[in-house]
Amino acid sequence: MQRNSKDSAAKLAAEKSFLTKKRSLPTVDELANGIPKGDRFLLAKGITLLESELPEKQKLGYELLDRLNTVDGKAIQIGISGPPGVGKSTFIEALGSYLVDQGLKLAVLAIDPSSQKTRGSILGDKTRMEALSKNENAFIRPSPAGKTLGGVAAKTQETIQLVEAAGFDVILIETVGVGQSEWEVYSMVDCFLLLLQPGGGDELQGIKKGVVEMADLIAVNKSDGPHMDLANQTKLSYLNALHLFPKNPNGWTTKVNQISALENIGIEDLWKNVNDFFKLVKENGHFEERRKAQALDWYEKHLNQLVWQSIYNKESLFEIFEEQKDQIIAGKIKPIQAARAVFQKYSKTPKE
Amino acid sequence: MQRNSKDSAAKLAAEKSFLTKKRSLPTVDELANGIPKGDRFLLAKGITLLESELPEKQKLGYELLDRLNTVDGKAIQIGISGPPGVGKSTFIEALGSYLVDQGLKLAVLAIDPSSQKTRGSILGDKTRMEALSKNENAFIRPSPAGKTLGGVAAKTQETIQLVEAAGFDVILIETVGVGQSEWEVYSMVDCFLLLLQPGGGDELQGIKKGVVEMADLIAVNKSDGPHMDLANQTKLSYLNALHLFPKNPNGWTTKVNQISALENIGIEDLWKNVNDFFKLVKENGHFEERRKAQALDWYEKHLNQLVWQSIYNKESLFEIFEEQKDQIIAGKIKPIQAARAVFQKYSKTPKE
Repeated sequence: MQRNSKDSAAKLAAEKSFLTKKRSLPTVDELANGIPKGDRFLLAKGITLLESELPEKQKLGYELLDRLNTVDGKAIQIGISGPPGVGKSTFIEALGSYLVDQGLKLAVLAIDPSSQKTRGSILGDKTRMEALSKNENAFIRPSPAGKTLGGVAAKTQETIQLVEAAGFDVILIETVGVGQSEWEVYSMVDCFLLLLQPGGGDELQGIKKGVVEMADLIAVNKSDGPHMDLANQTKLSYLNALHLFPKNPNGWTTKVNQISALENIGIEDLWKNVNDFFKLVKENGHFEERRKAQALDWYEKHLNQLVWQSIYNKESLFEIFEEQKDQIIAGKIKPIQAARAVFQKYSKTPKE
Repeated sequence: MQRNSKDSAAKLAAEKSFLTKKRSLPTVDELANGIPKGDRFLLAKGITLLESELPEKQKLGYELLDRLNTVDGKAIQIGISGPPGVGKSTFIEALGSYLVDQGLKLAVLAIDPSSQKTRGSILGDKTRMEALSKNENAFIRPSPAGKTLGGVAAKTQETIQLVEAAGFDVILIETVGVGQSEWEVYSMVDCFLLLLQPGGGDELQGIKKGVVEMADLIAVNKSDGPHMDLANQTKLSYLNALHLFPKNPNGWTTKVNQISALENIGIEDLWKNVNDFFKLVKENGHFEERRKAQALDWYEKHLNQLVWQSIYNKESLFEIFEEQKDQIIAGKIKPIQAARAVFQKYSKTPKE
């Protein structure tokens, strides 16, 4: 049914305009100009662009990064991990509030697998960190874990670069312990903090092997009230244990702190330790060294990512890639033969 | 000067034949037939083929692996690591001798960076493990660490497959702690054994972070004579410490053994523990699960390797790859821009 009245045409036009407006993203120009000024709305839009699975949007995201190339960030990057139930959100809320109170601009990135498709947990995260999310000097963003193909991570590193360009002082990167996320995050940050709770090894089931050893700082959360005795024991046990494990190559001795995020105890002392850590590694050159190693690492990883994306984005190639997996599991083909089959097909497929 | 006498012509022909003969490698056919019969000479030649940096030889190596595709190995694979000076070679000599005495066929692969070009350490290794190297049921082979481009390992996994096809019962893979070698090895083996010595953390400087945590078995070497008290302490400390660290997902509790490789003490008990480990993981399905995960891992790694090789083997591409590295270090280009430059060039380069 068609109605040609002026009214309905105007209504349609208005609706269309409304829809277009709502859906239109800021241009790369607007983003490149606004983000270095610290515009949080534009920063969020920029990250969305980078995280898009649509090649054309990804392209715009990288165009944006190119534009922000010359903006050098000053942010220190701290990775935070810990078993489920240890109180990571409460801790980030407490530490974050302390930092913004000190006049620092803070960004929190959470590598969050549950937000992969639906982004359902954004609201969850914002609720979890209520005070912080309302503070204009704090920016909270769950980063979808994304499709990790060939061990290649999602866009966390790119997001960090964008957040740095927005002029934040501190970036906390929370990892929730899925897949290789701790190692990925460890390879991106300046400092790695592990949150534990009072008690023995059983509570650690949610942490993967190697994570305790890579911590620059350990904080025993819930060091309050009835847990205090156990928390003291826990601190001592870890101090003893860490003595048996390899030393940090940067000359830093891993510190074990006692904190209570809920009661806001020990946060300031912990932050003093963080500052001590940065003072040491900046003085002895390990900060710069780690950043350079990370840049080379990122370079190789991104090259890998480009290759994997070009496989992933060609449906015919990706199908073969997945089919071969099934064949391997079924014991019908050996891994190297399967890889060669995919590579041969890949070599014959024209790229972009 | 030319001499056309019959004599000199015959001499030349003989010399030429001698040289040709000496240089000629066994054919893929000869290798594929001989290796499953346990021919150690042919096995060594096959590994050499795989490790070659010449694309045409590599191709033959993979042809060989294809031919041996159907030969299913029964070997259990044990990774061995430990700080320099802990006595890895003495330990492997002691354990290896024990195993061949039990009637087992043993292969020892050492991921050895010093042998990268000159293979200079082969002799060294054979001297280090003198009794073992003379035993006809043992096969010792240093594996050059090789050019690891893009985090891609050398041919250790391929070598393992070849050694498996040769019918060995046990494969020990020694890692000497360079680069990412422990993690590479960990991702290839069924069981990981860490060798330590009596004492505290200072001796651990040669071990990288995360390695203690990933051990399925720890053996405190040099648990003899004057070191005995310290060795007892060390064992207890690690038992306590391990309690604080994440549990093994396979349900196994990491065991700490006391041994003396030099005095041949505790080797049998250690091997009992190894057997207990394999009994458990084979019963609860983790052995099979780990092998499948490793196969998928190898599949993706090998696909990566093929891509990196196709970059590495094109001189023009490799030059750009290296140039970009310098630019990144100098801060003149960001990692993702550098990666894109290489990928764009790569996409336009015809493969093989």
